[in-house]
Amino acid sequence: MKSMFIKSRHAKVGAAPGTLVHVGEQRTDMTTVRVMAYDAAEVKSSALLHITENIPLPPEKGVLWINVDGLHQIEVIKKLGHHFDVPALVLEDVLNTDHRPKLEIHDDFLFIVVKMLVREPVSSSFRTEQLSLILGDTFLLSFQELDGDVFDPVRTRINDSKGRIRASGPDYLAYALLDAVVDNYFMVLENISTELETLEESLLTDPSPSDLQRFYRLRREAILLRRVIWPVREALAGLMRDESARINPETRVFFRDIHDHAVQAMDIVESLRDLASSLLELHLSRNSQRMNETIKVLTLIATIFIPLTFIAGVYGMNFDVMPELHWTWGYPLILLFMLGVAVLMLFYFKRKKWL
Amino acid sequence: MKSMFIKSRHAKVGAAPGTLVHVGEQRTDMTTVRVMAYDAAEVKSSALLHITENIPLPPEKGVLWINVDGLHQIEVIKKLGHHFDVPALVLEDVLNTDHRPKLEIHDDFLFIVVKMLVREPVSSSFRTEQLSLILGDTFLLSFQELDGDVFDPVRTRINDSKGRIRASGPDYLAYALLDAVVDNYFMVLENISTELETLEESLLTDPSPSDLQRFYRLRREAILLRRVIWPVREALAGLMRDESARINPETRVFFRDIHDHAVQAMDIVESLRDLASSLLELHLSRNSQRMNETIKVLTLIATIFIPLTFIAGVYGMNFDVMPELHWTWGYPLILLFMLGVAVLMLFYFKRKKWL
Amino acid sequence: MKSMFIKSRHAKVGAAPGTLVHVGEQRTDMTTVRVMAYDAAEVKSSALLHITENIPLPPEKGVLWINVDGLHQIEVIKKLGHHFDVPALVLEDVLNTDHRPKLEIHDDFLFIVVKMLVREPVSSSFRTEQLSLILGDTFLLSFQELDGDVFDPVRTRINDSKGRIRASGPDYLAYALLDAVVDNYFMVLENISTELETLEESLLTDPSPSDLQRFYRLRREAILLRRVIWPVREALAGLMRDESARINPETRVFFRDIHDHAVQAMDIVESLRDLASSLLELHLSRNSQRMNETIKVLTLIATIFIPLTFIAGVYGMNFDVMPELHWTWGYPLILLFMLGVAVLMLFYFKRKKWL
Amino acid sequence: MKSMFIKSRHAKVGAAPGTLVHVGEQRTDMTTVRVMAYDAAEVKSSALLHITENIPLPPEKGVLWINVDGLHQIEVIKKLGHHFDVPALVLEDVLNTDHRPKLEIHDDFLFIVVKMLVREPVSSSFRTEQLSLILGDTFLLSFQELDGDVFDPVRTRINDSKGRIRASGPDYLAYALLDAVVDNYFMVLENISTELETLEESLLTDPSPSDLQRFYRLRREAILLRRVIWPVREALAGLMRDESARINPETRVFFRDIHDHAVQAMDIVESLRDLASSLLELHLSRNSQRMNETIKVLTLIATIFIPLTFIAGVYGMNFDVMPELHWTWGYPLILLFMLGVAVLMLFYFKRKKWL
Amino acid sequence: MKSMFIKSRHAKVGAAPGTLVHVGEQRTDMTTVRVMAYDAAEVKSSALLHITENIPLPPEKGVLWINVDGLHQIEVIKKLGHHFDVPALVLEDVLNTDHRPKLEIHDDFLFIVVKMLVREPVSSSFRTEQLSLILGDTFLLSFQELDGDVFDPVRTRINDSKGRIRASGPDYLAYALLDAVVDNYFMVLENISTELETLEESLLTDPSPSDLQRFYRLRREAILLRRVIWPVREALAGLMRDESARINPETRVFFRDIHDHAVQAMDIVESLRDLASSLLELHLSRNSQRMNETIKVLTLIATIFIPLTFIAGVYGMNFDVMPELHWTWGYPLILLFMLGVAVLMLFYFKRKKWL
Repeated sequence: MKSMFIKSRHAKVGAAPGTLVHVGEQRTDMTTVRVMAYDAAEVKSSALLHITENIPLPPEKGVLWINVDGLHQIEVIKKLGHHFDVPALVLEDVLNTDHRPKLEIHDDFLFIVVKMLVREPVSSSFRTEQLSLILGDTFLLSFQELDGDVFDPVRTRINDSKGRIRASGPDYLAYALLDAVVDNYFMVLENISTELETLEESLLTDPSPSDLQRFYRLRREAILLRRVIWPVREALAGLMRDESARINPETRVFFRDIHDHAVQAMDIVESLRDLASSLLELHLSRNSQRMNETIKVLTLIATIFIPLTFIAGVYGMNFDVMPELHWTWGYPLILLFMLGVAVLMLFYFKRKKWL
Repeated sequence: MKSMFIKSRHAKVGAAPGTLVHVGEQRTDMTTVRVMAYDAAEVKSSALLHITENIPLPPEKGVLWINVDGLHQIEVIKKLGHHFDVPALVLEDVLNTDHRPKLEIHDDFLFIVVKMLVREPVSSSFRTEQLSLILGDTFLLSFQELDGDVFDPVRTRINDSKGRIRASGPDYLAYALLDAVVDNYFMVLENISTELETLEESLLTDPSPSDLQRFYRLRREAILLRRVIWPVREALAGLMRDESARINPETRVFFRDIHDHAVQAMDIVESLRDLASSLLELHLSRNSQRMNETIKVLTLIATIFIPLTFIAGVYGMNFDVMPELHWTWGYPLILLFMLGVAVLMLFYFKRKKWL
Repeated sequence: MKSMFIKSRHAKVGAAPGTLVHVGEQRTDMTTVRVMAYDAAEVKSSALLHITENIPLPPEKGVLWINVDGLHQIEVIKKLGHHFDVPALVLEDVLNTDHRPKLEIHDDFLFIVVKMLVREPVSSSFRTEQLSLILGDTFLLSFQELDGDVFDPVRTRINDSKGRIRASGPDYLAYALLDAVVDNYFMVLENISTELETLEESLLTDPSPSDLQRFYRLRREAILLRRVIWPVREALAGLMRDESARINPETRVFFRDIHDHAVQAMDIVESLRDLASSLLELHLSRNSQRMNETIKVLTLIATIFIPLTFIAGVYGMNFDVMPELHWTWGYPLILLFMLGVAVLMLFYFKRKKWL
Repeated sequence: MKSMFIKSRHAKVGAAPGTLVHVGEQRTDMTTVRVMAYDAAEVKSSALLHITENIPLPPEKGVLWINVDGLHQIEVIKKLGHHFDVPALVLEDVLNTDHRPKLEIHDDFLFIVVKMLVREPVSSSFRTEQLSLILGDTFLLSFQELDGDVFDPVRTRINDSKGRIRASGPDYLAYALLDAVVDNYFMVLENISTELETLEESLLTDPSPSDLQRFYRLRREAILLRRVIWPVREALAGLMRDESARINPETRVFFRDIHDHAVQAMDIVESLRDLASSLLELHLSRNSQRMNETIKVLTLIATIFIPLTFIAGVYGMNFDVMPELHWTWGYPLILLFMLGVAVLMLFYFKRKKWL
Repeated sequence: MKSMFIKSRHAKVGAAPGTLVHVGEQRTDMTTVRVMAYDAAEVKSSALLHITENIPLPPEKGVLWINVDGLHQIEVIKKLGHHFDVPALVLEDVLNTDHRPKLEIHDDFLFIVVKMLVREPVSSSFRTEQLSLILGDTFLLSFQELDGDVFDPVRTRINDSKGRIRASGPDYLAYALLDAVVDNYFMVLENISTELETLEESLLTDPSPSDLQRFYRLRREAILLRRVIWPVREALAGLMRDESARINPETRVFFRDIHDHAVQAMDIVESLRDLASSLLELHLSRNSQRMNETIKVLTLIATIFIPLTFIAGVYGMNFDVMPELHWTWGYPLILLFMLGVAVLMLFYFKRKKWL
C-alpha cells in the first residue's frame, strides 16, 4: 500500500550523503529535457532526448531555461548538475521527491523546492508532485517528476512575448512558474470548499451513511494541503527576506504577491478545517438527538403497552377461581381500566415534555 | 452553489501577472465614480458616469477623494490607475475581490485592502465586500464592489465641515473610512452575541431541534468574522509601524484607535467561540443526560413488567396437569407473588439510586 | 437582553471621532466628583457636586486626585478634560465603558484603562466595570462607572498617612488603585475555585441534573475573567517597559508586583479552565458508563425473560392437537426447560463479564 | 474546603503594600532558624530558637546560610529582613505562600521563589510548599513553610566537605538547594507515570468504574505539576540570562543543568497529558463499543422473539371460529412457521454483519 | 513495570552534582570501546577490551574516533573523560540515559545528546536509546547504551574511503553518525504511517474491536516520537546557529541537511497525529451511527409487534362475556385490524424517514 505522507527510502539508508538515488515512483517513461533560450529579441527552443555534450552554456545576457520532466534517469541529472556546477547535495534533494518545500540560498544560485498538486484521474483524489528550481544569474533549471501541462501558458507567454516575461531575467521566469503552482492550489481549495458545502447541504437536509467517508476524505485532503502549502509559504517568505541580489527589486514585488496568495491559501485551509470540525459536531449532535428521539418512541410504546399486555396476561390465566372472569361487566371494565392506565402514562409523558 | 470562503478564479489561471480580470460577482449595474475635492475652505463634489479625460489631477493642497462603486468595468479602473500612476499588479488586487486584507507600502502611495461586512437582505446572513484604498500624498482612491451607504456619514462630515476632517489630509480621510468599516464589525458582533444569548436561553430552558442549525450558522459566521478581522488587524498594526511619512503623526493616534478596536473585535470573536463551544458541550451533556433518563424509565418499566408477564404467561398455559390452577387461593396467591416480585425490583432500583 | 460581551454602540456609528458619547448603562443617579489633594504634610478633600470653575489646578508639589463616579453626565467629563488638557479621543475612551483594557503613553500623561469585577447582588454573577486612570506629573484622574467602595482603604491610608502613600507621587497612588483592582480578581477567582470544588465533590459523589448549568455558569465566568485579566496584564507589562520618567524607579518595583499578580491570576484562570474541562469529561464518562450499566440490566432481564415468555405463549395456544399438554409430567418438564434456558443465558452473560 | 489552586488572602485585601501578613496555613508549631557558616576550612552550625541580636553578620569570606522553617512568626522574618537589608515588598512575597515561582534581580541580592512538591501522608496526593531564596554576595537566606528533610543531604555534603560545595560561594549552595527541589519533581513524575501505566493496564484488560476517578485525580495532579514547573523553568531561564555578577561563571553551568532538568520535566508532563487524553479516548471508545454490543444482543433477542411471541399470542386467542386450531397438523405447522421466521431474522442479521 | 517516559533515578537523589551514576538499564554485558584513527591516507582501528593507559592521544591531524558501547562500567567512562579533559557534569549527562536531547557548546568541544529509535524484537514496539557525542578539534567520542549496527555503514565508508569522509574532520564524522540516526526516524515513521493506513482500511471496511488497541498503540508511539524528534531538531538548529569554528563551513551545509530532515520528520509526526485524530473521530461517528441503526431496528420491531401482542393478549383473556369471541368473522376481523395497525405504524415510520 502506498503511503500518503511518506515515501520509502530504503535505498538511501546508510548511503553516503550526496549519493544520487531517486526516491519516489517512476512516473514517466523517458526523461525529457526541454531547453528554451530567450531574450527580448528572440526565442530558441529545443528538446534534448539524449544528453550529450550539447547542453548550452549559461548565456551572457537573456535567459536559459532548462526543464527536466522525469527524475529516474539519474545520469541526466548528474550531467546537468556538473554542467551548471550544482553540488551533489542539492542534486540529491532534487531526486528525493519526498522532500519538504524549502529555500536554500547558495552563493551561485537559489535552490527552491515546492510541491504541485495533481488530481489523480481515477480516484479523483490529489497527489503531490515535486518541482525543484535552481535559479542562477542567467539560467533557470526546473525539475518535475512528470511531464505536466502546468507550464504551457508560461511557454506560450514567452513565445508570444506577452507580458514582461521576455524583457526580464530568470528570476521573473521563476516567479511565473511558482505563480502557476500556487494558483493551482486555489483550484484544489475551491474543489474541497465546494465538496464541503455539498456535504453541508446533505448533512443538514438528508444525511446518508456515506457522508462520513466523504467527510474523512476531505479532512485527509485538508491535512495534505496544509503540509504542502505551509512550507511553501515559509520558503516564499525566506525569498522575500533574502538580501542577495539574485532577485531583482522589480521582481521582488511579484514574489510578495505569490507570498500573499500562499498566506491566503493557508487561511482558507484553516477556515475549511474549522468549518469541517463544526460540521462534524453538528452531525454528531444531530445523530445523538435523533437517537434520543428513537429511544423516546420506543420507550413510549413499550411503557404504555407492556403494562397493558401484563394485565391481559393476568386475565388469560387458567385458574379455576378467578371471580372477575365471571362478572357480566368484567370485560368492558378491564378494557376501561387499561384505557385509564394508558391515559395516565400519556399524561405522565406529557408532563415530562416527551410528547 | 456559491462558496463562502473562496471565489472562482478560473479566468485567471495561467494569465500573465498584472492582467486585469475581475474576480467576483458583478454586484451593481453601473460603475459609479464619485469625485470629491475639498480643503479647509471649500468642497467640490461631482459624479462621473463616463470616464473621459476630465479626471482631476491630484491637487497641490487639499484632498482629492475618488470613490469607485462597482468593479466590473475594467476600463474605468485601468484609466484611473493610469491617471494616478498605480502599477498593474495593484490594480489586479483591486479587481480580485477575493483578496486577503493587507497593507502594501509603495514608494508613492499606501495600498490598503480590507473587508466590509454586509447583511444579505433575504437570508439575513453576512457577506463580505472588499474595500481597497490607495492613499497618496494629496489623494485617496477608494474602490467598493457595490454602492453602499456606509460612507455617507463621512461625506456629510466633509460637507458640514464637522470634526477635523476638512482641515486634515487624505490620511485622515482614510482613517475615517476604515473607522466606519471597523465600527460596522461591532454591529455584526453584537448581532451574533445577541443570537448566541437567545440560543443559550433556549437551550437552558426549552431546547428545540432547530437550535442545532442556528448554532451551526453562528459558528460559521464566527469563522467568517475571524477570517475578516484578523488580517485587518494585522494590516492596521503594519500601518502603525510604518515609518514612512505618509501617515501624519497626528493621524497616527487615530489609526491606533482603530487598531485597538480591531484587537477588541478579535477578542470578542474569540470569547464568542469559546462560549459557543461551552454551550454546545452543555447541550450535548444535557442530551446525553436526558437519554439516560429515558432509558432508565424504559428499563424500569420493562424490568418490572416483563417478569410479571412471564408469570402470567405460565399460568395461561393449557397443560392438563397444573395443580396450582385448581387451588382455591391460587389466583390471589399468584397476584401476591407478582406484587412481591415488583416490590423487590423497585427496592433494587431504589438502592441503585434510579428512583 | 443585555449582552455579556459587547455593549450596544448604535449611538456612535458614523459619528466623528472624538465625539463624546457615553456607551454603557447609566449605573448611578448623579455623577460625583471627589477631590483629594495631599502631600506629606497635609490632606484636603472635598466633594464637588456641581462642576463650576473651582476645580483646583495641578499643584506644584504633592498629589491632586480627582475621582469621578458615574459617566453619564458628559459635560462634567468634558470640563475636567478641558481643565487638564486631555485630548477628546482619550475622553471618548473614558466614556466608552466597553473598552478593552489598555495603556496609552501620551506626552503629558499615561492613560490606563482596566476592568473591575463587581458581584451582582441578585444573580450573584459577576459584572465588569471600567476604571480609567489619567496619570499626570502631579495629578491623577480616575473615572468609575459607579460609586464603589473599593478605593475606601486607599483613602483611609491617605488620611492616616499609613504606608508610604503620602510621601510618594501620583504614580504610587495609581499603583495603590490598580493593586486594589487586581487583588479583587483573586476574590473572584477564589469564589470560582471554591464553587468548582463543590461541583467536583457533587459530581464525584451524587451528581444532580442542575450541576450542568452551574458548570456552564462557571465556564462563562472563566471566559469573562480571561477577557478581563489578559489585557490588564498586557497593559501592566507595557507600563513596566515604558521608558518615560512618568513612573518613578521606586514605584516601578511596585508595578512589577501587580504585574506578577496579574500573571498569577491568568495562571489560575487557565488551571481552572483545565480542571473544569477534566471535570466535564469525567462527568460525561460517568454518564456514559451509567447508561451502559442501565442498558445492561435491561438487556439482561429482557434476554432472559423474552424467550421464556415465548415458551409460555406456545403452551398457551389453543390447538386441538398439542400432545405435550396432556403429558402428566408436561408442566414440570416445561418449567425445568425454562429454568435451563435461563441458566444458559446467565452463564453466557457471565462469560461475557456482564455480571 | 481547602482550595487546590488558590489560598485565601482575605487578610491582605486593602492593606498597604509591604504590610507583612502570612498567607497560607500554619504548618509547623515553631519557627526554627538554622544557621550554618562555612568556608573551605571549617563549618559552624547552630539553631536559633529565639531571635535575639545574635544573628551573625554576612561574613567577609565563606558562606553564611540561614534557613527558616515555618513562616507564621512574622517578627522573626521581619528581624532577619532588617538584619540583611531586605525590602518589605520582598518579605511580603516570602510570607505569601501562594506566590507564583519567580526570579527578581535586585541590586544587592537575587530573590528566587520556587515550589516544592510534598506528598500528603494520608490522602497520598501532592501538596505544594514554597521555598524562597535570598542570595547575597556571601549569604543565602532560605525560607520554607515546614521543617523538611529535603535539604539534609546538602547539609551532609557541607559537613563532609563532599563535592565542591565547601570551596564555592552561596550561588553554588543555592544551586544545590534548587537541584534538590527539581530532582524531587522527577519523583512525583515517576509516580504519576507509574500510576498512569497501571491505569492503562487496567483499562485495556479489565476496566473498573473507579478507574475514572483515579484518572481524574491523575489529571488534576498533572495540572498542578504544570503550574508548578512551568514558572520554575522560566525563573531558571531568567537566572541564566542574568548578566549580573551574582552567579559565578563556573556555577552558571550548573544552573543550566537544572534548567535542562526543568525543561525535561515540562516535556514529560506534556507527554503524560497527551497520553492521558489518548487513554481517556480509548476508554470512551471502548465504552461506546461495548454499549453497542449490548444493544445488539438485546435487539437480536428482542427482534427474534417478539414476533414469535405475537404468533403464539394469536393462537392463544379464544375466538370460537379459528379453523387452524382444529387442523391435525396445526401445531407442528405453526412451530415450523415460527422456526422459519427466526431463521429469516437470523439470516437478515447475518447479512447486516451483526453476528 | 518499566515506565515509558521516565526512568528511575532513585540512586541519584541528593547526590552531589558531577557524581557519576548510571541511570537506565544495563543493556549489554561488557562495555566495548572501539578506536578508529584515520586520515586521508590510512585507517587504523582496534577494540579495547580493557581500558588501560593505551588510549591514543588526540592526533595532530586526521580524526580519532572512540566509540563506547555500554555505559554501566563507570570507570571506563571516567578514564576516557579524564583522558580527554571532559568535565564531570558532562560525563554525568552521558551516563544518565534518560536525558533530553540537547546541544552544549563548551570551549573545547561540543556536547551533543540525541536519541536513537530501536525496535524491540518481541513486542515490536519502539525503544529509545541515547547517543552522546563529544566533538573536539581532532577527536570524536561517541557513547551508546548498546552495541548497535547503525554505525556499521559509516565504518565501511571510512574503511573504503567512500565519499568525502576520509578527507574531512571529526565534524563530518559527527554529521555522518547523526545522519544515520535521523534517517532511522524515517523508518519508524514509515512503519507507523503504514500501520495507520492499514487501520484506516480496516476501519472503513470491516472494523474489529482490536482496532482500538492498535490505535492507542500508534498514538503512544507518535507521542514518543514527538518527544524524541522535537529536541533533536532544536539541538540541530542550535548547531547551525553556533558561531564557533568547531563546525567547518563546508560541513555546516550537511548539518543543515539533517536539520531539514528533522523538520520534515516533525512535520510527518504532526500530520500523522492529525490523521489519527480524524480517523478516531470517523470511527466514533460510525459507531454512533451504527448504534443508531441498531436501535432503530429494535424500535421498529418492538413498536410494531408490542401493540399487536397486546391485542392478541386481550382476546386470550378468559372472561365469560366477550361477545367478539363468538362472532363468526371475529378472528379474520381481528387479524385485519392487526394488519391495519402494523401498516399504520410502518406508514408513520416511513414519514419519519426511518425506513
